[in-house]
Amino acid sequence: MGNPKVLNNYGSFDVTFVKGQGSVLTDVNGKKYIDFLAGIAVNCLGHNYKPLVKAVAAQAKKQIHVCNYFTSDVGLAFADELLAATGFEGVYFGNSGAEANEAAIKLARKYGQLNGGSSRKTIVTLNKSFHGRTLATLTATGQDRFHPEDFAPYVQGFKTIEPNDYEGLENAFDETTAALFFEPVECEGGVIPVEKEWAQKAAELARKAGAIVMCDEVQTGMGRTGALLASDALGINPEVVTLAKAIAGGVPMGACLYRGNGNVFKAGDHQSTFAGNPLACAAGRVVLKTLTAPGFMEDVLRKGEYIRNTVKGWNLPCVVDVRGKGLVIGIQVNKDPAAVEKKCLADGLLFSTAGSDVVRLVPPLNITMKEIDAGLAILKAGLEA
Amino acid sequence: MGNPKVLNNYGSFDVTFVKGQGSVLTDVNGKKYIDFLAGIAVNCLGHNYKPLVKAVAAQAKKQIHVCNYFTSDVGLAFADELLAATGFEGVYFGNSGAEANEAAIKLARKYGQLNGGSSRKTIVTLNKSFHGRTLATLTATGQDRFHPEDFAPYVQGFKTIEPNDYEGLENAFDETTAALFFEPVECEGGVIPVEKEWAQKAAELARKAGAIVMCDEVQTGMGRTGALLASDALGINPEVVTLAKAIAGGVPMGACLYRGNGNVFKAGDHQSTFAGNPLACAAGRVVLKTLTAPGFMEDVLRKGEYIRNTVKGWNLPCVVDVRGKGLVIGIQVNKDPAAVEKKCLADGLLFSTAGSDVVRLVPPLNITMKEIDAGLAILKAGLEA
Ligand SMILES: Cc1ncc(COP(=O)(O)O)c(C=O)c1O
Ligand SMILES: Cc1ncc(COP(=O)(O)O)c(C=O)c1O
Repeated sequence: MGNPKVLNNYGSFDVTFVKGQGSVLTDVNGKKYIDFLAGIAVNCLGHNYKPLVKAVAAQAKKQIHVCNYFTSDVGLAFADELLAATGFEGVYFGNSGAEANEAAIKLARKYGQLNGGSSRKTIVTLNKSFHGRTLATLTATGQDRFHPEDFAPYVQGFKTIEPNDYEGLENAFDETTAALFFEPVECEGGVIPVEKEWAQKAAELARKAGAIVMCDEVQTGMGRTGALLASDALGINPEVVTLAKAIAGGVPMGACLYRGNGNVFKAGDHQSTFAGNPLACAAGRVVLKTLTAPGFMEDVLRKGEYIRNTVKGWNLPCVVDVRGKGLVIGIQVNKDPAAVEKKCLADGLLFSTAGSDVVRLVPPLNITMKEIDAGLAILKAGLEA
Repeated sequence: MGNPKVLNNYGSFDVTFVKGQGSVLTDVNGKKYIDFLAGIAVNCLGHNYKPLVKAVAAQAKKQIHVCNYFTSDVGLAFADELLAATGFEGVYFGNSGAEANEAAIKLARKYGQLNGGSSRKTIVTLNKSFHGRTLATLTATGQDRFHPEDFAPYVQGFKTIEPNDYEGLENAFDETTAALFFEPVECEGGVIPVEKEWAQKAAELARKAGAIVMCDEVQTGMGRTGALLASDALGINPEVVTLAKAIAGGVPMGACLYRGNGNVFKAGDHQSTFAGNPLACAAGRVVLKTLTAPGFMEDVLRKGEYIRNTVKGWNLPCVVDVRGKGLVIGIQVNKDPAAVEKKCLADGLLFSTAGSDVVRLVPPLNITMKEIDAGLAILKAGLEA
């Protein structure tokens, strides 16, 4: 490992990147890798995407950051454009997925307080979910392995239910529920799409009990599933959606979108020094403009289908299931996915695993067919090895 | 207000900035403002600082972000340089002050778990402190007004003591204490410096009880007080220091530095998607290099003294106290500091208030004497009004 001082926090591979171009990364030794990881669904426009690089450079010259007691031209513009594109009433910016979700958790609690007082504070999340590494988002995460005694005591007021379990919905919500909070596709948990019917039933029952519906679209949002928001395809009209990862093409940024009953924040309820800084907003404007250009989403859907169909077409005995939506792709295998990951890395293809038995592909959304085919060839060899 | 959709989260002034140059900002109407705020101690090198702008633009072209399961050349370089300059053993990067502090809180809890089990989990913070807006950092914050019922239930395992109260130290720490966690200067709380003797006594007693010492230098760190770290001047050798704000000159970034008994994180204990991204690290390298150049810190100290002495020299009846360290300056007044802020804003000077009765100045560290004098003239008129 190159540097234990930082690396031991991640158990990182001993690969150090120096630059990227499109969906190809280059390491310190000049070796090239096809990028089916995109920094874990972050680099949605790949690397060195000219309009993004230009916008970041130009904004850095104008102003990188201003205090949130004031506004910036580019901050107001991005907020307007994001709300117009997504159909929300307001946005609270932050700097990561965890921060977007911390905002959502506070918002849900305040909603509960206003609609039932201190007894309506429970947030219902899903088994196998992932919501972040801050104490509250870690507690929200429905995976026991993320809750070691080391970091206890955890935060009160969370409850976990099983996704796609219709019977479990019967007793899921009551007058203590403030919000239902879930990922439209559980990405880190193993690329598990939530069924549309289940999502609609869950949303209906949650609202009947007086709760709001919040979607964590930190990984699924910003075009990843072939729609600007994955929740759009579920027809549940969530009161709150959180975003991060791809929102500014790699510049750190998070967002908590809210509307209707989710519109409860007052001035001072929540803040963050860097939130909505001009640099991230300038990058975000390029991302949003690119993603909403005619044909872009259709292209994402087409490429996702192509990858899934190709992998299925291999009929490999180690492949148990191929699933996902748009360009978040899960390949469930009956062997150690980390071994496949390692072999492919050596052969010049980057991706990561999800859950315990899933190869997860989240390439840049503008990856070319040539890059896809080159990556798939390496992946096939890795799965066969 | 320009845009209620984002503005109502901050109760922002109706001033929209488009660009900056040095310590001068320009709004949409072309009006110029002297910047004694620096985005709340963020823009440590002012605006459009050529080496910073160049580094950000060049890095954006190479790679903005890579997944933390790998490393980047610039990420490793910045980690090395930061550890060498500060004397720490390891660093966990994040994207904000709140995230740096969430890391510190988890670290303290793990330290406690390893050194006393589940009964040693309490983190002792100070009255009037500010540590962030995520649920755990909000709980750590020693100010009741930040703990409305709206966001309850708060996080367990925090206890607050009075800064600079020697008697209160007697019963402050015991076998349940995991860490003492405090700002060397309580900035948001009203620019209240912690006395060196008190800090040393507190650190000694905390360690005697088996706890570690952690400093929140999100605002005081990176040269703000005339030393790279404000805790350096306290002679307490903290096991953990958190940084953010100025660390990357405005690009969102946080850091949790650790050493000795604070070196407890193992791979996977804590993560964040954007943490230590190349863009922020490239910016951080320029900041660190500039701050550690010969004479820079002396200059910060000199400018701080100059401002404090000048304000004192005015002998204004409304000024109760002038305090701070280096370029974090608190002017306690016997009238509403928000009224002074508003008048100065109209006259072309930017700053903010802290606590209930303090005008707080945190200009860029490289502000010129000419900009200082221009700002002070407006401030004097504002205080006299
Ligand atoms: C669905 C989801 N929510 C939240 C997070 C946390 O985001 P971040 O790492 O930016 O804090 C992630 C990160 O993988 C995620 O996939
Ligand atoms: C001492 C201190 N800690 C933590 C924070 C929170 O930092 P951020 O707003 O980047 O989350 C602040 C912000 O003002 C601060 O001054």
